[in-house]
Amino acid sequence: MIEKIGNIIKEKDSFLIVSHKNPDGDAIGSSLALYSALKDMGKNVQVVNLTKPPEVYSFLEDYDIIEPIKTMKKTDVIIAVDTAEIERCGIKKEDTKDKIFINIDHHKTNTLFGDINFIDGDASAVGIMLWRIFKQNGIAISKKTAQYLYVSIMTDTGSFRYSSTTPETMRIAADLLEIGVDPWFCAYNIYESNTLETIKLLGLVLNTLQVFIDGKIAILYVTEDMFKKTATQIEHSEGFVNYARSIRGAEVGILLREDRHNVFKISMRSKGKIDVARAASVFGGGGHKNAAGAQIEGTLEEVKTKIIDSFSFLK
Amino acid sequence: MIEKIGNIIKEKDSFLIVSHKNPDGDAIGSSLALYSALKDMGKNVQVVNLTKPPEVYSFLEDYDIIEPIKTMKKTDVIIAVDTAEIERCGIKKEDTKDKIFINIDHHKTNTLFGDINFIDGDASAVGIMLWRIFKQNGIAISKKTAQYLYVSIMTDTGSFRYSSTTPETMRIAADLLEIGVDPWFCAYNIYESNTLETIKLLGLVLNTLQVFIDGKIAILYVTEDMFKKTATQIEHSEGFVNYARSIRGAEVGILLREDRHNVFKISMRSKGKIDVARAASVFGGGGHKNAAGAQIEGTLEEVKTKIIDSFSFLK
Repeated sequence: MIEKIGNIIKEKDSFLIVSHKNPDGDAIGSSLALYSALKDMGKNVQVVNLTKPPEVYSFLEDYDIIEPIKTMKKTDVIIAVDTAEIERCGIKKEDTKDKIFINIDHHKTNTLFGDINFIDGDASAVGIMLWRIFKQNGIAISKKTAQYLYVSIMTDTGSFRYSSTTPETMRIAADLLEIGVDPWFCAYNIYESNTLETIKLLGLVLNTLQVFIDGKIAILYVTEDMFKKTATQIEHSEGFVNYARSIRGAEVGILLREDRHNVFKISMRSKGKIDVARAASVFGGGGHKNAAGAQIEGTLEEVKTKIIDSFSFLK
Repeated sequence: MIEKIGNIIKEKDSFLIVSHKNPDGDAIGSSLALYSALKDMGKNVQVVNLTKPPEVYSFLEDYDIIEPIKTMKKTDVIIAVDTAEIERCGIKKEDTKDKIFINIDHHKTNTLFGDINFIDGDASAVGIMLWRIFKQNGIAISKKTAQYLYVSIMTDTGSFRYSSTTPETMRIAADLLEIGVDPWFCAYNIYESNTLETIKLLGLVLNTLQVFIDGKIAILYVTEDMFKKTATQIEHSEGFVNYARSIRGAEVGILLREDRHNVFKISMRSKGKIDVARAASVFGGGGHKNAAGAQIEGTLEEVKTKIIDSFSFLK
């Protein structure tokens, strides 16, 4: 599989790289790592995404080359990275006609939508899988490519904390540092570049913390009013749900985000014992075992009650 | 040096392990790693500290064996870990008479107070130096010992983020995972075990955020009143200073902690360009280039003004 993908990369000339909408560090890091390595080989490469990547990643040199998907050019090969379902990347099956469609992903739920599907549900990030492709096919990894791989791996393992972190993860990280990646430069830009407004918003949100069902469920919320008061937008509350999860004794952390008046985006994070994808599916949402989401309409109190009720099996 | 220490460990029978007061993850992790490895060799070992280790480390199996320093028993060897100056561990030079006094540390400023001084200012944690001692002397590293080393390394590199993180750091971490360390178990207990009260306190503190000198200095404060209001103590504000440092554009993050009425403990964290040890020394404090502290008396506003003035060279 890895050799097959390597041969296509070597033989073909033009590549389109896509990833899931609302791209995270793995989606962006692995898209750009592939871009950078292919460019170094003299290929024609375009990276597109359904959504503009979060500004926090703008420190990456090639951040600006990621284009809206509607600008899609002609290509020999389409490569989707970190994309569990084809719908999430905005590519239609008919777009892939007469092209080679490669699907590289680490979601166990991947629907195998590509012509070639390289899926490893145990890889801690797609960056790990790209590293294997590059190394085993003798494709050069520049310092810039290494940095993109590092961003992919660091962000998707929560800075090497999640249980997906394996000895292989750490050894590849070591090799990337050897190539010249500066771990503090990446961490500093991703984790230590909060705006004043974001921190003010976080302060307000943390003061909403409540726990339910013997402390097993911890809930935070952010309202339209708080966004207004701190001059922030939805994207500034990214990651706040982790503070709910971080409560000692809590099995699930939840953030209720008021996107419009009485319309809440619900993010759920599990410490591992409770499957939050199942909980989210009750509300027509979805996700993974440890990270899922849904949308619920109602007043803050109504929504909170609905969610607590949905976890009544914990009582 | 490493062989010499190995020989002493093998030949002698009783060991006393000390580290600096107000021990952090490296002090605790490396004290317990040494304890665990020596116990596995059948040695008599006692671990003492001037202060009770923070409760967050109570998930470590041997947390309770760390005794107050006044209980110090007779011993052949005293080993100080992670201790830059002898005063910081509570051992007096006369206590070490007729004993072998080994000093294992990674502070560049270490005063070489031991009979044997193994100092590596480039090691990302003392856990790295103990790993070398164990490996090069054929001393067994059990899963428990490995976990203590991991805690030492993970905490002192800020979860593998700081620039002290090297390829060696990552490779040793990989080997520790191979031995059976669970990265999420360590991270979960250290970073994801906040109490409800701590998060409420953090919420209050974040709302005090202000920046000065073109945003280069970010200041947070925590008052006696906030501790009272949230039923928290001083130790619950541990790490809050990092939120000040995390502000985009800020070179230095500062936390003012009111320990007694109008007596403030000042913690300063630098992103790397500004030497905060120098800034702290103005107030009779000290520390490292990137992390320093001092104590200042006065009202909150007076203290804030004094600190801002001390950074006027940045204007």
